[in-house]
Amino acid sequence: MKVSVLLGERLKHVSDESQIESQVLMTKGGYMKPVASGIYSLLPPAQRISRKIQRIIREEMDRIDGQEVLFPVVMPASLWQSSGRYTSIGSEMVRFEDRGGNKMVLGMTHEEAAVHMADHIAKSYTQYPFMIYQLQTKFRDEPRARGGLIRVREFTMKDAYSFHTSQEDLEKYYERAYEAYVRIFKRVGAKNVIAVKSDSGMMGGSVSHEFMLLTDVGEDTLVICPDCGYSANMEVAECITKNAETSPAPLTKVATPNAKTIEEVCAFLGKKPEDTAKAVVYAYNDTDEYIVVFVRGDTEVNETKLRNYLKREVHPAAAIREDSGIVPGFIGGVGLTDKVDVVVDRSLEGLHDLVTGANEEGYHYTGFDFARDYGRKFVYVDVAKARAGGICPVCGKPHLTVSKGIEVGNIFQLGDKYTKSMGMTYLDKDNTEKHPIMGCYGIGVGRLMASVCQESRDEYGPVWPMSIAPWQVEVCDLRVTDDKVRARSEQLVSDLERMGVEVLYDDREVRPGSMFADADLFGVPVRVVVSQKTEERGVVEVSTRDKKIKMEFAADEAAEKTAALVKELLAAYEI
Amino acid sequence: MKVSVLLGERLKHVSDESQIESQVLMTKGGYMKPVASGIYSLLPPAQRISRKIQRIIREEMDRIDGQEVLFPVVMPASLWQSSGRYTSIGSEMVRFEDRGGNKMVLGMTHEEAAVHMADHIAKSYTQYPFMIYQLQTKFRDEPRARGGLIRVREFTMKDAYSFHTSQEDLEKYYERAYEAYVRIFKRVGAKNVIAVKSDSGMMGGSVSHEFMLLTDVGEDTLVICPDCGYSANMEVAECITKNAETSPAPLTKVATPNAKTIEEVCAFLGKKPEDTAKAVVYAYNDTDEYIVVFVRGDTEVNETKLRNYLKREVHPAAAIREDSGIVPGFIGGVGLTDKVDVVVDRSLEGLHDLVTGANEEGYHYTGFDFARDYGRKFVYVDVAKARAGGICPVCGKPHLTVSKGIEVGNIFQLGDKYTKSMGMTYLDKDNTEKHPIMGCYGIGVGRLMASVCQESRDEYGPVWPMSIAPWQVEVCDLRVTDDKVRARSEQLVSDLERMGVEVLYDDREVRPGSMFADADLFGVPVRVVVSQKTEERGVVEVSTRDKKIKMEFAADEAAEKTAALVKELLAAYEI
Repeated sequence: MKVSVLLGERLKHVSDESQIESQVLMTKGGYMKPVASGIYSLLPPAQRISRKIQRIIREEMDRIDGQEVLFPVVMPASLWQSSGRYTSIGSEMVRFEDRGGNKMVLGMTHEEAAVHMADHIAKSYTQYPFMIYQLQTKFRDEPRARGGLIRVREFTMKDAYSFHTSQEDLEKYYERAYEAYVRIFKRVGAKNVIAVKSDSGMMGGSVSHEFMLLTDVGEDTLVICPDCGYSANMEVAECITKNAETSPAPLTKVATPNAKTIEEVCAFLGKKPEDTAKAVVYAYNDTDEYIVVFVRGDTEVNETKLRNYLKREVHPAAAIREDSGIVPGFIGGVGLTDKVDVVVDRSLEGLHDLVTGANEEGYHYTGFDFARDYGRKFVYVDVAKARAGGICPVCGKPHLTVSKGIEVGNIFQLGDKYTKSMGMTYLDKDNTEKHPIMGCYGIGVGRLMASVCQESRDEYGPVWPMSIAPWQVEVCDLRVTDDKVRARSEQLVSDLERMGVEVLYDDREVRPGSMFADADLFGVPVRVVVSQKTEERGVVEVSTRDKKIKMEFAADEAAEKTAALVKELLAAYEI
Repeated sequence: MKVSVLLGERLKHVSDESQIESQVLMTKGGYMKPVASGIYSLLPPAQRISRKIQRIIREEMDRIDGQEVLFPVVMPASLWQSSGRYTSIGSEMVRFEDRGGNKMVLGMTHEEAAVHMADHIAKSYTQYPFMIYQLQTKFRDEPRARGGLIRVREFTMKDAYSFHTSQEDLEKYYERAYEAYVRIFKRVGAKNVIAVKSDSGMMGGSVSHEFMLLTDVGEDTLVICPDCGYSANMEVAECITKNAETSPAPLTKVATPNAKTIEEVCAFLGKKPEDTAKAVVYAYNDTDEYIVVFVRGDTEVNETKLRNYLKREVHPAAAIREDSGIVPGFIGGVGLTDKVDVVVDRSLEGLHDLVTGANEEGYHYTGFDFARDYGRKFVYVDVAKARAGGICPVCGKPHLTVSKGIEVGNIFQLGDKYTKSMGMTYLDKDNTEKHPIMGCYGIGVGRLMASVCQESRDEYGPVWPMSIAPWQVEVCDLRVTDDKVRARSEQLVSDLERMGVEVLYDDREVRPGSMFADADLFGVPVRVVVSQKTEERGVVEVSTRDKKIKMEFAADEAAEKTAALVKELLAAYEI
């Protein structure tokens, strides 16, 4: 491919440099063009990278016995009604009516379509297990598209669905899918990807993992133990606190005028935050009734864990209704109105001398112990946020770290949520009809591309891994007007192409600085420079985009040696 | 791939055998499953075929310097407003609002997206010509989905867009695209495909060709000259009539009581239909005003040609308003109300003794000659339907045939319709801003697959060409319970796969009749049968799905020889 006719424009500047780096570089490099918020067209370099990523994904899906299929983008609402998600999913799902007045949706995921396909076909246990997958366009009406291809509304996704006759079989296959994912991320050149336990969200199901590419610009927060390798999404990470030994103390009401916040109360009473029971008020989304959550004063509530525990949607209560019986600033375990639900975090377990609100303007209690003084029946539950320096729930060491990551893939154990709601059954060995057990497995292609760019770049452009680079070699001809130089370049390009190497050939009459700046934006791993100088010396200059290699090849061996270098660099991504 | 775990079901019967053959066979064979009217999921065999067709298309697009890109499925209405098509296209385009209330559409074609991509990038004439293409999902809300994958609402399409600085350059490229299409259809194994001149329809532009696969179940009607090879879609085919020599006769009013139709008038007056001027009444869609079209009594009006001539939408007038001045049954060239528009077909040119209505209940005229007697200004135009036995507009021989065809591809010379309306310009050599000239080129992948099936089949199933077959070889193991037979089959499968052959392995314990019936539905070109009998004789039975080859290979040479046969059959589709 000649740069002179390659469709795309390299920019020196982008209007909004506050965007994340991969977005800035891929915009400057002419990889994509926004068509609407969160909707992009991909230009040739990005489409080439996308196709290479897709090929790697296909190979790994086939390797774990996946069968490629294709589900529709547009689906009848009835399919989503049968699973119950037509109502449970909000405005991120696009709904419209077709010309016949039939309700339709745009597919944002394809569990329903997968069950629809397999239903009435996989009728006998002898046909299990099997996995079907597709690479298809999806649309999710995200309220906040951002980060270029990182969070978009329309995207190409690989989604896979496995069907099993037992939980054990699902778990076995889940393990294989997990390993396939590890291979995929290694093969596309994503370096810092870790699998973390996650919340299943709208998918339902129990166990799930997210594959997270660690980067400061990630939207997800991860809790990682450097000692044992434990990792989890902050949304589900267990919080273990080690409480200091405290002795029982008498429950004593004390006046705490104007002391409402933990800080104010601690300052006034000469206590530390970990000696207090902090009360945080939430409200149910559907009824507006309140929930009071007690956590140790120095910890935060993890809203996802709270929702999962309550199995209902809640939100922080902004202003508290006057008639609620709640006394903001003085909420506590003694005399709390019974009009609210109460959740007590296990960070408070075993603490005998807590400060807590008196549910009366201007007063707190000291010497409070939930077990002794609360009066109502309760259990300690885990709804607090894990934090840096916290205790690892696996190895127990207090070295947890908190990092940011981009979710580049996820795998879910779905159970029978979809097969049950949609009435799909098979005839089991014992001659009874059962619902198959499902797993599902997703990877967003465009996001993975942008994430690799985010991880693999310098200030001048992407540094594409050889396995997914848009081209493998770029030949820069610094003097196309010189017949000998041009002939050398053209010969090299055609020799390389004959050897199966993918070549980008910069054949433009532009200044070297401009050509090299563009080459940096193309991010092609191997660069070969041909100029009057090299031609005089009978060599070509070869370097790698990551700056690790810089050397000269004799001109008459250049094609062969460059092809060998490509092969060598490619091998690093093979498994 | 083992048949035991392949997702799909082969059926003995389908509920509606009135469907076209390819639809019946592909349904029976488990290639696809309807999700809604005109919306299908593709099961593994169909997806495999689709991917092979896509690969061939990609190779041929790349061969004519195409650059693969990706446009979005969901686009903002504003993009389509800028070209004017947001209003000019009817309810076949899906429109909806996103969560932010923005008007969006589903892409049914991507001219606007292509111009949007190239705009502000291809700024200089030095960057021209170029062609961009994609393989992407499209949605057209067809009122009448039919024929399985032949006419659907959602489909995978290759669409390409070329940009040029002159009409000559477009024509040169159009020729290359035409040849690429010929290669694509040959390579996918479509045998009876011809290119016909066509109507540009909603695309706009002037010259266009449709590639038609000739088959009785086709929806399009084609006019073909067996003498010179001329071909055209009936919609645009020229109609040339040879009129008998007639002598001028006096214009004479005759009473024709109760004779309203051409047949009745001819019977009453002892004339032939070709001696009459038939009047057909149409109405404009937007104003309901009438148009009277006169054609020779034995010919029909071609509505597409009529619309193109009038450059307005019209429809046949069902009931004629009383106040129109039109006298149904007696409409003619003498004394016709001037409240209607009149179109005179050239089939009436040179006829001096016509029968025509007197615009008066119960009367006609004889001896009518448009040129002499009509009185109003008019020109003879071509709005009549070509017909079998008609005169070829190219070679003049009267041997035209009329055939049915499925449109499997189309190519259009678009001109500057889109670049002009959307304001895309480039700086030309002469330093002036100009609108690029465009061409566009489409192929529906699913329709092509179904069309090949329609053409290449027997009563038992598809006979897939080796180039696009879901698998290249099917190994039928007639006795999997016999260890030796099974070992032989498995060895053969693994040997073939090692040689790069794609194998479907029927490893099920089913009766031979059932296994062969399924094999016919899979349509795999080469079949290898392993049984106790063949094992005893140290051979395997090899046959081709098209029944042209049936032979035995020694068991120990079977893999090698089968692989060679595959290679040989594949070569027939290579160019």
